[in-house]
Amino acid sequence: MTALSTILSRRTIRFYKPLPVKADDLRDLLNGARVTSCAANLQTLRYRVVTEPALAEKVFGTLAWAGYIRPKRTPVWGVNAPTAYIVVLAPDDNATHHADAGAAIQSMQIIATEKGLGCCWLGAVDRKVLATILSLNEKQHILYVVAIGIPDEQPTQVDISATDDIKYFLDDNGRLNVPKIKLDELVTWN
Amino acid sequence: MTALSTILSRRTIRFYKPLPVKADDLRDLLNGARVTSCAANLQTLRYRVVTEPALAEKVFGTLAWAGYIRPKRTPVWGVNAPTAYIVVLAPDDNATHHADAGAAIQSMQIIATEKGLGCCWLGAVDRKVLATILSLNEKQHILYVVAIGIPDEQPTQVDISATDDIKYFLDDNGRLNVPKIKLDELVTWN
Repeated sequence: MTALSTILSRRTIRFYKPLPVKADDLRDLLNGARVTSCAANLQTLRYRVVTEPALAEKVFGTLAWAGYIRPKRTPVWGVNAPTAYIVVLAPDDNATHHADAGAAIQSMQIIATEKGLGCCWLGAVDRKVLATILSLNEKQHILYVVAIGIPDEQPTQVDISATDDIKYFLDDNGRLNVPKIKLDELVTWN
Repeated sequence: MTALSTILSRRTIRFYKPLPVKADDLRDLLNGARVTSCAANLQTLRYRVVTEPALAEKVFGTLAWAGYIRPKRTPVWGVNAPTAYIVVLAPDDNATHHADAGAAIQSMQIIATEKGLGCCWLGAVDRKVLATILSLNEKQHILYVVAIGIPDEQPTQVDISATDDIKYFLDDNGRLNVPKIKLDELVTWN
């Protein structure tokens, strides 16, 4: 698979098989994040990996899933929840850190997809509770959580116009459909 | 090339051959950005592509390059400057848009690398002047500019400790060296 085809085929995954993720695979994801572009090469992001089941269950408890169709794509711990979590940390909530995190997370998502893993990039996190669970200090601000596991759903993409509804939905077969605005409505040339 | 090897080998490029970038290649980059994860699938980012030489020269004039070694990696228009520019726009300066932009830009950078193109993700932009040049309205906030072209330098990566200097530098052969902190100093497990 090329990088292009991997990027185009990747979809956010919210239902997973109850299987562990190999540490070596997570290291590959994190190494991709490590060498990703960042503002002024400052490398302010840090990563907390949680795969130990008792702690992972607590991390899972701080996350909110798929707001538009809640609770139909909210996984259940021990049944179809992801088993690995990467918490992305920065010294503070500066917008530049968010840009760095977005790029690093996309690197991780692409590498995961190539390995047959699935990811969900979560912004709906109870940061206060998660910081307590992980015993973080005030210089360890939680930006995002990336959940990783073995996919147990196959979402599909549908092209729409910019004026159509962007909310993802379940079709009659229970498959998640993700609307994406057509390229020519996102781009202006010269 | 795998997505992983493409991500690991990608480096920011600041010197380019004075050659155009194919529109079809730019479309592939933008299509990758289009399907990249974004907050709540809202798809708020828009892209302004500039390849027309007279306009591209004006866009180029609003950008500042490689602050740590200025002006040694500041390209010269018509000599070694990139010939294509993608301006990433959002409705406002919200941090979530920065995260979306970071992810979308990393998709574009990876696809570009796979095609043998180089990119520089620029945050040091005279946004007020560029908005005037592009006749943008107040709902078209400039987040970043991605410069794209045919690479004419080969930067290399050096691993460092988190306490070392992160500033990139030119070695005795005039090659750009980019320090990256070792993985085990960025990551904590469980």
